[in-house]
Amino acid sequence: MAERLVVVGADAAGMSAASQARRRRGRDDLQIVAFDRGNYTSYSACGIPYFVGDVVPTADQLIARDPQTFARDFDIDARVRHQVEEIDLARRAVLVCDLDAGGTHWEPFDQLLVATGATPVRPDLPGSDAKGIFGVQILDDGVAVRRAVDDGAKRAVVVGAGYIGIEMAEALVLRGLDVTLVTRGPEPMSTLDPDMGELVRQALCDMGIDIHTGCSVSGFDTADGRVRAVVTEDGEFDADLVILGSGVRPNSALAGAAGVPVGVTGGIPTDLRMRTYETDGVWAAGDCVETYHRVARQPVAIALGTHANKQGRVAGINLGGGYATFPGVVGTAVSKVCDLEIARTGLKEVEARRAGFEFVTVVVESTTRAGYFPGATMIKTKITAEKRSGRLLGAQIVGREGAAKRIDTLATALWNEMTVDAMLNLDLSYAPPFSPVWDPVLIACRKAWEAVESDVAADLTGGA
Amino acid sequence: MAERLVVVGADAAGMSAASQARRRRGRDDLQIVAFDRGNYTSYSACGIPYFVGDVVPTADQLIARDPQTFARDFDIDARVRHQVEEIDLARRAVLVCDLDAGGTHWEPFDQLLVATGATPVRPDLPGSDAKGIFGVQILDDGVAVRRAVDDGAKRAVVVGAGYIGIEMAEALVLRGLDVTLVTRGPEPMSTLDPDMGELVRQALCDMGIDIHTGCSVSGFDTADGRVRAVVTEDGEFDADLVILGSGVRPNSALAGAAGVPVGVTGGIPTDLRMRTYETDGVWAAGDCVETYHRVARQPVAIALGTHANKQGRVAGINLGGGYATFPGVVGTAVSKVCDLEIARTGLKEVEARRAGFEFVTVVVESTTRAGYFPGATMIKTKITAEKRSGRLLGAQIVGREGAAKRIDTLATALWNEMTVDAMLNLDLSYAPPFSPVWDPVLIACRKAWEAVESDVAADLTGGA
Repeated sequence: MAERLVVVGADAAGMSAASQARRRRGRDDLQIVAFDRGNYTSYSACGIPYFVGDVVPTADQLIARDPQTFARDFDIDARVRHQVEEIDLARRAVLVCDLDAGGTHWEPFDQLLVATGATPVRPDLPGSDAKGIFGVQILDDGVAVRRAVDDGAKRAVVVGAGYIGIEMAEALVLRGLDVTLVTRGPEPMSTLDPDMGELVRQALCDMGIDIHTGCSVSGFDTADGRVRAVVTEDGEFDADLVILGSGVRPNSALAGAAGVPVGVTGGIPTDLRMRTYETDGVWAAGDCVETYHRVARQPVAIALGTHANKQGRVAGINLGGGYATFPGVVGTAVSKVCDLEIARTGLKEVEARRAGFEFVTVVVESTTRAGYFPGATMIKTKITAEKRSGRLLGAQIVGREGAAKRIDTLATALWNEMTVDAMLNLDLSYAPPFSPVWDPVLIACRKAWEAVESDVAADLTGGA
Repeated sequence: MAERLVVVGADAAGMSAASQARRRRGRDDLQIVAFDRGNYTSYSACGIPYFVGDVVPTADQLIARDPQTFARDFDIDARVRHQVEEIDLARRAVLVCDLDAGGTHWEPFDQLLVATGATPVRPDLPGSDAKGIFGVQILDDGVAVRRAVDDGAKRAVVVGAGYIGIEMAEALVLRGLDVTLVTRGPEPMSTLDPDMGELVRQALCDMGIDIHTGCSVSGFDTADGRVRAVVTEDGEFDADLVILGSGVRPNSALAGAAGVPVGVTGGIPTDLRMRTYETDGVWAAGDCVETYHRVARQPVAIALGTHANKQGRVAGINLGGGYATFPGVVGTAVSKVCDLEIARTGLKEVEARRAGFEFVTVVVESTTRAGYFPGATMIKTKITAEKRSGRLLGAQIVGREGAAKRIDTLATALWNEMTVDAMLNLDLSYAPPFSPVWDPVLIACRKAWEAVESDVAADLTGGA
């Protein structure tokens, strides 16, 4: 008799896993059912700001595969608007609520994949569940925000200045709203060190966004259950639309309540093959898990579609009887604000310190093309390297066209635990339309190595 | 008394070395004299096609530092229009001809750096030294070609379709010439496999270039010592301007004649610190040397400004009393034809075979951004991976905006001898304006790994 795989959450991780499992095991061997509380399957959550900003006109464009496609081409029964409310490990079944028809029923499983994603951090403040306040995580959230904009919202306040906050702020500016951005951090884009985040602040200002840094939200002013203003220590900011962009948390509550171990990050730990610990036949993948940070050597929970897809693939191959492992992350991320490209990998300064590293940092300005070549623009590269060894610990890039994807070179070097000394001779591509003869990455490595050497010299001579 | 360093060739390698040596040793400790047969020092040779095409309006823009700057800021005596005609190792002196004043004299050295660059391959055919036929290697060549164009050349034939040939063909089209490109290879851009080169042919055709592949030149028709046509097996092509773009050879004759060992590639072998072998105090760097190919594990001579700069830096640090090594190359290169970006790293198929590898290849089409994101364009990635091990051996990329620099990620992986299996989980940056959720590099690695696995399965089951 066929085994039955139940997938909770039918987006990137869940459906990557389901598809991979199906490739290896036919319907007579494995029955696959996936449930999702939202209206959509397998969509690009990272595309939501662009849909809100009308850069991408319709929500359909963000969808890779709908339930009909899964049924027809993969023999996967993907049921949207079905919320899993409980997992019973002893009974090997999940309690599912049909959000349209109403009522709940139990669905049995042999194998269970928890792919419940993440939920936006919603501050526990007066008025925080008023209408007009949106977290942005699933596509339904994006549809709701876009509807609010279409319905005539004029003033938006974005709380939090991480990737989602900043991308949403830009999207709302594109739609003609007055946008205020409020963040507790010293600069926007707190995934960067403040000296690099300052460039992001400038780009946001240039777009006409009103930015308040070092500013905490104390509550929301509401009327008739609708938000009217965001209350902060810097004063009140009128808003008929509020975006919560203070990050997300792994959505591990459902699995945790069932007895699946949950880690210190709030994410579900898994082994290399994406199996949860101490729970046979229960797998987890995507934004709800915690993963291994290869530089910090600590568990981290990083909500990102690319990890979700890879982890889903790994879970699916293993569920399908194959062998694959997920080897962790190095903390790479990239974003765009207007024409400013922003990227990071590895550890920023506070993270490196927290992990126990001592390090040197350098910031280097160069150009994306040969200086004399038309279209050459400024690129600022920051490198953090371990004291003494010179091992690369992290990098950040801010610049214009052609800047950000250079982070992948640094991420690959980081993955391989290269020193900046070894990196400065890397055989990177050079031609005038693409880089100066010393690529900005190489220049930064050279300067970082010089800083490591100076630091060693100072230590050994007892000098400053 | 100060030592005396004589540098032969005052471009990328030579002057990088001179500057680095100066940083570490003051004028009282090291006297530095550099000679160059051309009119310029420290310029971007790779920028010459853009100067010819008027993308870069003046030759000055290609010059990083002129002799005055070297004298003033570095205390380096750089003498242009001075050709070194002989090296006498016993006497420890070079014979220098002052091309303007005339006459030769001996200049003594304690340390000698040979940075004589490369020379274009000039076919030994009737008429090949006629006026109007140009190799393009030093900036003076570029100035001469541009003058010929300015003087009204109408029809150009480019012989050879490597980087220089193709970039010069485009430059001449930009200047309004009728351009014919003749190459012996099956496709233009012979640094790529033919299946990838075919895309380059298409881009060249779209520019209006008349391309003849698989076509050998048998001579040049001349009148009054000027070229009139290029004679080939496909017929004669009228030309008042001919560009030799069939590659370059290390310019090692001067050093070889003095008894410095020369390798099978025609380049000068050096140790890791850029010292020539069996010749004390004689160093070499740049296009005139041969270097170690880290994948083929063979010596190669690759003329490229980025290697020249790095090798010059290494030689200069060592000449200055420091310690640095040049660890070899992996064969990375990048170019642009119109808006088509072309990149490669590692070994192409014939090179991998010659090195003794057996391998699988895959070619994957994807997009540079998320498929739904405005501006997403096609990117074609080819991967060559070793049979069984799955170790990356080479990669080629052809695409539009944002395609080519992805080769650096592959070059870094190659440098670290990664397998495509390990690579497919690399933590590369993802956001919709920059890549699909699976970056094209990762997709290609996934497909390559599947090909490796299929190949193993076929071997082990004795199947096809």
